[in-house]
Amino acid sequence: MESSKTVRKLEVASPVPADIDIANSVAPLHIADIAADLNLSPRHYDLYGKYKAKVLLSVLDEVQDSPDGYYVVVGGITPTPLGEGKSTTTVGLCQALGAFLDKKVVTCLRQPSQGPTFGIKGGAAGGGYSQVIPMDEFNLHLTGDIHAITAANNLLAAAIDTRIFHEATQSDKALFNRLCPPNKEGKRTFCNIMYRRLKKLGIDKTNPDDLTPEEVTKFARLDIDPDSVTWRRVMDVNDRFLRKITVGQGPDEKGMVRETGFDISVASEIMAVLALTTSLDDMRERLGKMVIGNSKAGEPITADDLGLGGALTVLMKDAINPTLMQTLEGTPVLVHAGPFANIAHGNSSIVADKIALKLVGSGGFVVTEAGFGSDIGTEKFMNIKCRYSGLTPQCAIVVATVRALKMHGGGPQVVAGRPLDRAYLTENVGLVEAGCVNLARHISNTKAYGSNVVVAINMFSTDTEAELNAVRKAAIDAGAFDAVICTHHAHGGKGAVSTEYSINSYQYYGCDARLSSFAIPMLVDLGIAVQKACENVTQPLRFLYPLDASIKEKIEAIAKSYGAAGVEYSEQAEKQIEMYSKQGFSNLPICMAKTQYSFSDNAAAKGAPTGFILPIRDVRASIGAGFIYPLVGTMSTMPGLPTRPCFFDIDLDTTTGKVIGLS
Amino acid sequence: MESSKTVRKLEVASPVPADIDIANSVAPLHIADIAADLNLSPRHYDLYGKYKAKVLLSVLDEVQDSPDGYYVVVGGITPTPLGEGKSTTTVGLCQALGAFLDKKVVTCLRQPSQGPTFGIKGGAAGGGYSQVIPMDEFNLHLTGDIHAITAANNLLAAAIDTRIFHEATQSDKALFNRLCPPNKEGKRTFCNIMYRRLKKLGIDKTNPDDLTPEEVTKFARLDIDPDSVTWRRVMDVNDRFLRKITVGQGPDEKGMVRETGFDISVASEIMAVLALTTSLDDMRERLGKMVIGNSKAGEPITADDLGLGGALTVLMKDAINPTLMQTLEGTPVLVHAGPFANIAHGNSSIVADKIALKLVGSGGFVVTEAGFGSDIGTEKFMNIKCRYSGLTPQCAIVVATVRALKMHGGGPQVVAGRPLDRAYLTENVGLVEAGCVNLARHISNTKAYGSNVVVAINMFSTDTEAELNAVRKAAIDAGAFDAVICTHHAHGGKGAVSTEYSINSYQYYGCDARLSSFAIPMLVDLGIAVQKACENVTQPLRFLYPLDASIKEKIEAIAKSYGAAGVEYSEQAEKQIEMYSKQGFSNLPICMAKTQYSFSDNAAAKGAPTGFILPIRDVRASIGAGFIYPLVGTMSTMPGLPTRPCFFDIDLDTTTGKVIGLS
Repeated sequence: MESSKTVRKLEVASPVPADIDIANSVAPLHIADIAADLNLSPRHYDLYGKYKAKVLLSVLDEVQDSPDGYYVVVGGITPTPLGEGKSTTTVGLCQALGAFLDKKVVTCLRQPSQGPTFGIKGGAAGGGYSQVIPMDEFNLHLTGDIHAITAANNLLAAAIDTRIFHEATQSDKALFNRLCPPNKEGKRTFCNIMYRRLKKLGIDKTNPDDLTPEEVTKFARLDIDPDSVTWRRVMDVNDRFLRKITVGQGPDEKGMVRETGFDISVASEIMAVLALTTSLDDMRERLGKMVIGNSKAGEPITADDLGLGGALTVLMKDAINPTLMQTLEGTPVLVHAGPFANIAHGNSSIVADKIALKLVGSGGFVVTEAGFGSDIGTEKFMNIKCRYSGLTPQCAIVVATVRALKMHGGGPQVVAGRPLDRAYLTENVGLVEAGCVNLARHISNTKAYGSNVVVAINMFSTDTEAELNAVRKAAIDAGAFDAVICTHHAHGGKGAVSTEYSINSYQYYGCDARLSSFAIPMLVDLGIAVQKACENVTQPLRFLYPLDASIKEKIEAIAKSYGAAGVEYSEQAEKQIEMYSKQGFSNLPICMAKTQYSFSDNAAAKGAPTGFILPIRDVRASIGAGFIYPLVGTMSTMPGLPTRPCFFDIDLDTTTGKVIGLS
Repeated sequence: MESSKTVRKLEVASPVPADIDIANSVAPLHIADIAADLNLSPRHYDLYGKYKAKVLLSVLDEVQDSPDGYYVVVGGITPTPLGEGKSTTTVGLCQALGAFLDKKVVTCLRQPSQGPTFGIKGGAAGGGYSQVIPMDEFNLHLTGDIHAITAANNLLAAAIDTRIFHEATQSDKALFNRLCPPNKEGKRTFCNIMYRRLKKLGIDKTNPDDLTPEEVTKFARLDIDPDSVTWRRVMDVNDRFLRKITVGQGPDEKGMVRETGFDISVASEIMAVLALTTSLDDMRERLGKMVIGNSKAGEPITADDLGLGGALTVLMKDAINPTLMQTLEGTPVLVHAGPFANIAHGNSSIVADKIALKLVGSGGFVVTEAGFGSDIGTEKFMNIKCRYSGLTPQCAIVVATVRALKMHGGGPQVVAGRPLDRAYLTENVGLVEAGCVNLARHISNTKAYGSNVVVAINMFSTDTEAELNAVRKAAIDAGAFDAVICTHHAHGGKGAVSTEYSINSYQYYGCDARLSSFAIPMLVDLGIAVQKACENVTQPLRFLYPLDASIKEKIEAIAKSYGAAGVEYSEQAEKQIEMYSKQGFSNLPICMAKTQYSFSDNAAAKGAPTGFILPIRDVRASIGAGFIYPLVGTMSTMPGLPTRPCFFDIDLDTTTGKVIGLS
């Protein structure tokens, strides 16, 4: 294999500087160089400035006969306020594979929502010496995909209210006349998209004048039940005052007010469509099939019924191309799609993974991240994303930290802004061991899909040898293929790889000196562990449930994997399940909208709770994206801003043009 | 001068095919070739795909000592539903100058709002053989500037409501503690942006702990009067149901509901800032100075008071770079900013014009379009845009058509969808002559600024020799430098230029054969006329009013130019004028928000009405952008969708990836 021309090894400083300072200390390569290293020529991509390029979907046609590389998914233990470093591990592992093990590798990441960047959260490009750069471009605007989603989502929303309004004020005949106006010769025609509705209605006529009055009514009057409209508007801003609003209060709207609200843009079904689509043609179909509510007779009304499937596709035509960026060590990254991990499936796009697998080819690696803990992210990765993509991962990583496991073992609460309890800063092997029940369940759940599970223990300076050994032992006992310490935050790629089994080698790679002072010296060889896991997979991909099971059977299979003793449905949930089954949507996969902070519905229940009854409060559907999503409790789909948002610190140095204060 | 390598002459068909078919029949050049023709090297721009590039503002630093080219502004007579072809003329003239007269030329256009593209209007890239290509990229997303404006505008809106909410639920001390939290060592600091508010409050302390309790209150409590908030949310979608809404109805917002609404994104003050700014530093200051409402004590509250001036600048940092595109004949176009022509000044950006003037250099031409008729577009171009830019146009074009002048002369109403009255299709010199009063006033108003005025008569096939001659005569009588027929819609650049005074030359250039059959053969030499006008300017730029006049004096100067006998102020307008004067904003230029369909406030009053009293209903201000805008009647700032929007026809050919049905 030809050696990469773009990867480079970092000089690291200690203590680790601020993320933004590290990001700014490395001059990114021109993205054309990163592309060339993946054998992409300029006709395969569109540049967006010097450090971003959209890789065109058409690349897939050219490489369809090439072999795929290894496919690695990164999940985690149940998240805690302490942070486990999943994105950082994803990036660090790739830097190790690319810059130190000389493998072809592509990191596939979600595009972060821009809204939270200005609130509490800050950026999402990894951290320390494992980051995607330039981090300001990663976090802001990127190549406009989320803006395209916002525009498309809201065009559909405007069309819904306007159509209801026009139907309320016009006769069937007037509506029909406007929808199919006569041309100069007095001849009426259907436009292309209208044939989709005609087909759905079982009308096979091509001349509008041939429709019977009943057919005219059926065709022209969608008769949308305003109370059934589930389509909300979106905005990529943390705007809590838009969570619940009343629209239509202007005098021209004649009193047709309606209660609705805004979600953050990444919660749009269009984002989920982008993440799950496999081609332009497939995206066109999915966008057209999105259900926005029901007619008064209970029939689902789609974007195509409103005449919008084509226009939405046009708005999304560039968004379907993943964005190429780079890590600090010059390895390629594809950033694409970032659906909510609660009400959607929380995984980056299928098309980015597919392109990446072909580009790295046989023996190469694609590392893709799944949102939240593996109960949510990896489960949906397997049962929804892999089901639609047809791809099979060889290795699934579970990221864990000693301090987070201590919390699962019963450690004290962590409050933002207050100093950490000493339980997290000094050795407490008992707490760690107790918390490993959480890790163990994530391992066994993940292993059930057939992948080899590697546990990545993202090390902190306060972790002790005994604590780290406790995690490794628990992981192996629970069936992990391997469990490895990694220090990529402090060391970049070299913190996730070691090739020589001597103490000198750790020092050569600059890894934490403490590791070599342990009784049994510890290796930071996550890269090697992942490679071995991929090369030694023995099981085929197995799903948790078949698609042809009933909605309830599927929900119950997932609930069982959480440790639940049973499932309880609200009246509303029962009603919705019945409706979706009647409407013919029961064969879709299930996307549970559950808290990420516990296997159960109770965010406070750490560790590995059992015996609880999982309550299903409501059931909704993203028909275009292709899943049913039961709501286990209330999910906020629009974050807010704190009293002192981080936008106070963000500014532009107008002399250099550099962004400052972004974290 | 080195000859251009990118311009080319079109083969034209007759009758003129549909706009989209013409646009698709010409393969655009790679934008790097267009850039190279302007002596731009790759470090001067960022590519956005193959046919768009953002020209970096830093180019201005490099060329600051180069001479400017000629500066030409295109206005029109009072618009009618018949369309006058102002954009088409702007593009056609540039094709003539670049592809036929071998001049360096740049067309400066506004970025169209995406919303109306899906409603009634269709695209805005010119028409016929005078268009900007690729037209789908011109009309949709472009390089994301409007999306950036939407994001920035709405972040500010979210910050306003959230701040009001947090202030209502926290003590002064708690607010202050959150705004200036102690660090690990217990030390408080102000962040940079806070010094702006401290300065405004006259507090020159640098240690938060030194503030007196009164100063803490003044600093931490903005005390925004919710009823005074003028900042609205925006969306680039025609969504009439958002014109008036109630926000904050969610349970977490504790009953703090407020009535507000959405405007279309191009109506955001941030768009006006983008159009009027002259540098990154200037944009940072303008964004920070934007006033969102008043404190309960009547003090203006700014984006900087909310801590947001820097973050807004970061969101807008790429948007400040104009987008380079091309015409059908390969001449360069800079597309940049598209502020509303009613409540804002309706002109493309100052920075694009400045860059363009340097790039074309001495003897070259920059042609920039001003929105609506010259009573609105050109007036604001001179008194607002040129005042802020310091640039002086040598030539101002007034675009007219025979049929539109007939309407101003008293021709029958035109109703969309109904056949045109025969008055517009057959010769009626009397109507034309009567309508020329409108043209004459536009000419004399425009001439008063000191520019030479050239009338471009955009010819239709039904226009007769006598009608065309009537317009030319009226134009010259009114003081125009020249008045020229042009046929660029049908012929591209060659429809706006002829260099030889023989009948053969018209045929050589393929112009309308009818022109050479006229008793006095007519020349289509708009390009030559504009060149002569630029070379023979004798007057300096004169403004209609000095900035230090009172708000009322300035309003009355503009009203007089409309033909008004006087101005009448509502009580609300009086109150606002008093408030802005008290707040120190009376030295800003005035941006009248008046109907574009008449010189007067009555859209039905065609021709050149006189003696009317101009009513000022209300007075508002865009302090950051830098103007006061009196409202003459009601301006809709959020369009709606019709029953059958043009999105029905828009689709993607998923095989070729081409957009279809966009018009």
